[in-house]
Amino acid sequence: MELIIDALVRVVIILITAKLAGELFEKFRQSAVLGELLVGVLLGPSLLGFIDPTNEILKFLAEVGVILLLFEVGLESNLVKMLKVGWNSFRVAIIGVLIPFILGWAYYHFMGHTLMVSLFVGATLTATSVGVTIRVLGDIKKVDSPEGRVILGAAVIDDIIGLIILSVLVSMIQVGSVQVSVIARSIVFAMLFLVLTTWIGIRYAETIFKYVHSMQVRGALISASVAFAFILAVLANLIGLATIVGSFAAGLVLETTERKEHIIRRIAPVSDLFVPMFFIMAGAHTDLHSLSLRALPIIGILFVIAIISKLVSGWGCQKKVASRLGVGIGMIPRGEVGLIFATIGLSGGIISAELYGILVIVIMATTLVTPPVLRPVLLAQGKKEV
Amino acid sequence: MELIIDALVRVVIILITAKLAGELFEKFRQSAVLGELLVGVLLGPSLLGFIDPTNEILKFLAEVGVILLLFEVGLESNLVKMLKVGWNSFRVAIIGVLIPFILGWAYYHFMGHTLMVSLFVGATLTATSVGVTIRVLGDIKKVDSPEGRVILGAAVIDDIIGLIILSVLVSMIQVGSVQVSVIARSIVFAMLFLVLTTWIGIRYAETIFKYVHSMQVRGALISASVAFAFILAVLANLIGLATIVGSFAAGLVLETTERKEHIIRRIAPVSDLFVPMFFIMAGAHTDLHSLSLRALPIIGILFVIAIISKLVSGWGCQKKVASRLGVGIGMIPRGEVGLIFATIGLSGGIISAELYGILVIVIMATTLVTPPVLRPVLLAQGKKEV
Repeated sequence: MELIIDALVRVVIILITAKLAGELFEKFRQSAVLGELLVGVLLGPSLLGFIDPTNEILKFLAEVGVILLLFEVGLESNLVKMLKVGWNSFRVAIIGVLIPFILGWAYYHFMGHTLMVSLFVGATLTATSVGVTIRVLGDIKKVDSPEGRVILGAAVIDDIIGLIILSVLVSMIQVGSVQVSVIARSIVFAMLFLVLTTWIGIRYAETIFKYVHSMQVRGALISASVAFAFILAVLANLIGLATIVGSFAAGLVLETTERKEHIIRRIAPVSDLFVPMFFIMAGAHTDLHSLSLRALPIIGILFVIAIISKLVSGWGCQKKVASRLGVGIGMIPRGEVGLIFATIGLSGGIISAELYGILVIVIMATTLVTPPVLRPVLLAQGKKEV
Repeated sequence: MELIIDALVRVVIILITAKLAGELFEKFRQSAVLGELLVGVLLGPSLLGFIDPTNEILKFLAEVGVILLLFEVGLESNLVKMLKVGWNSFRVAIIGVLIPFILGWAYYHFMGHTLMVSLFVGATLTATSVGVTIRVLGDIKKVDSPEGRVILGAAVIDDIIGLIILSVLVSMIQVGSVQVSVIARSIVFAMLFLVLTTWIGIRYAETIFKYVHSMQVRGALISASVAFAFILAVLANLIGLATIVGSFAAGLVLETTERKEHIIRRIAPVSDLFVPMFFIMAGAHTDLHSLSLRALPIIGILFVIAIISKLVSGWGCQKKVASRLGVGIGMIPRGEVGLIFATIGLSGGIISAELYGILVIVIMATTLVTPPVLRPVLLAQGKKEV
């Protein structure tokens, strides 16, 4: 019982501080996620020591949080629209993955680190978190602008490429070295998994969820939805992929059913409770003591790489379609997927506590700088059009 | 990670089987809780061995489940109406607590058990679970009948008396013996706790939750509600009461706020996921191997005591107000509170695995027999009136 009461107390503190910090950051037009990460650092072992990142119950809640996060992302990604996404978005996404990956890898390789560490650093810089950009676009009523459409399209493709890269990294950790055959196999596995689960899922989900929705017992729809997300998460884990690849696929499948809106409405309060657990724990993993002054130039250089490498992705868009600068800036913010890469690298023993701290800071910095820059650029663009 | 994946798999199986069993039982006009309990027995160590009732993560989820269950009960109990409840309900509740308690205690005392065990048996038989009765009343459109109103009023008072008895039992476990001073202190503590938390809570809840509801960040209301329920649960635990006394008080407080409906809507999918965890784990604690043939007569006698002792409570109601037989039958079903008593007695080392199994079976039996008997009695009553 003491263990349970102890966990309850920690969950209470996490819920309250996460929401207060999130609210504060949103007041200043920043991402709530940033606030949650900072609270995690504050409550973690390097400062207050209130949250032990090795606590099994909290680890479970955080894992459920990230599974539900990607389930929701999937629920909001329309497969048909994804397949129809324009070449502009496609080129932006590809450039926006390749350049950060190559530059991040090259820099760490140049500094004398192993191939595995360098690949992890490159991979962590690849995934755009479109949430911050959507927020800014929404604030200035530009979600449906040319720039907005190109960015949103690119972000979806970026997510899927990110999940495939993640699968490669997870299998590299399992094998313990970088082997071309392993990389090839896990790319094939990840793509096959996504294609097969969504294909089979879409065939049967409508029938199954129609029955579930007709059930009399309370909570059938939310239970079936969460169970489905967990099942694909566990399946993904079994064939050596990350759990979130599975829950993302589950979201994609349920997005195609008629019950989509009901599911989204019921899953929201559940993920409101679980998702902050992931970001708080990601913050708590950050060991400030491992960061010395010598980390500062590394943070600076990685930050510049993170910014420039996504900026250039804007030039994957045709000049006549949208502002290349606007698109490039909109792709800069990194978030949950980058954090997932870093936490997996840390727990897999690939990246050090110091490197983890550096990557978390770089990710947070990209999210911090975007809104104040993106706003004037897009507003100026709007005036030019008029 | 293996621990987490393992827990995910078990949660999936629990969610799916709980809902399928619940649906099946509701089809046969039985309580979904019965189905969940049976699934728990089936998955537990005495049959399939799929669920380990000592698993820390599952124990945590079950505890959150029962905390949220009583939080919801509180959210649906109106304090003002409770204080205005008629003398008929009050007398029915008091008789319906005293008689089962005295008969249960006397029977076990007579069989030569210790005072502590006898008190636990008596206490477990006291609390009516009104859910089953409400269901039957709803089916035949009698919730607002005289019998329905008396039963619902009595059930609310019964809940509060049950929570106070529970507080006494918990403190007896902590002290390790039956002392009048301990009993008196814990009754005072429990009543003071309920009065003080609801009084202070109602003073400030409206202001706090008005602010929470105005927050921009996603999930503020659900996070604050759950945090509030957990805080009072932990507080209750700290002063030696059961956690559910706290979450019940939290529900009572939030019921008085303007945001009540929003909170109920958001908490529903969350408790849909957590509450079955409690009933499945309660079932999993049942060790069938501990039950021998010699348990059969004990089950039979306790069952008769459980039925008769609640039946007579109907005579606490004035004859002209409602059908005494109908009220008495409506008070028979036992459920969550009785199960909580039994699980606390088991985990506190007071009652044996055999006695736990006996009590679970008696509780389930009271719930099973009520609907087919209550329906014709109330329908006949309706015809008499016409």
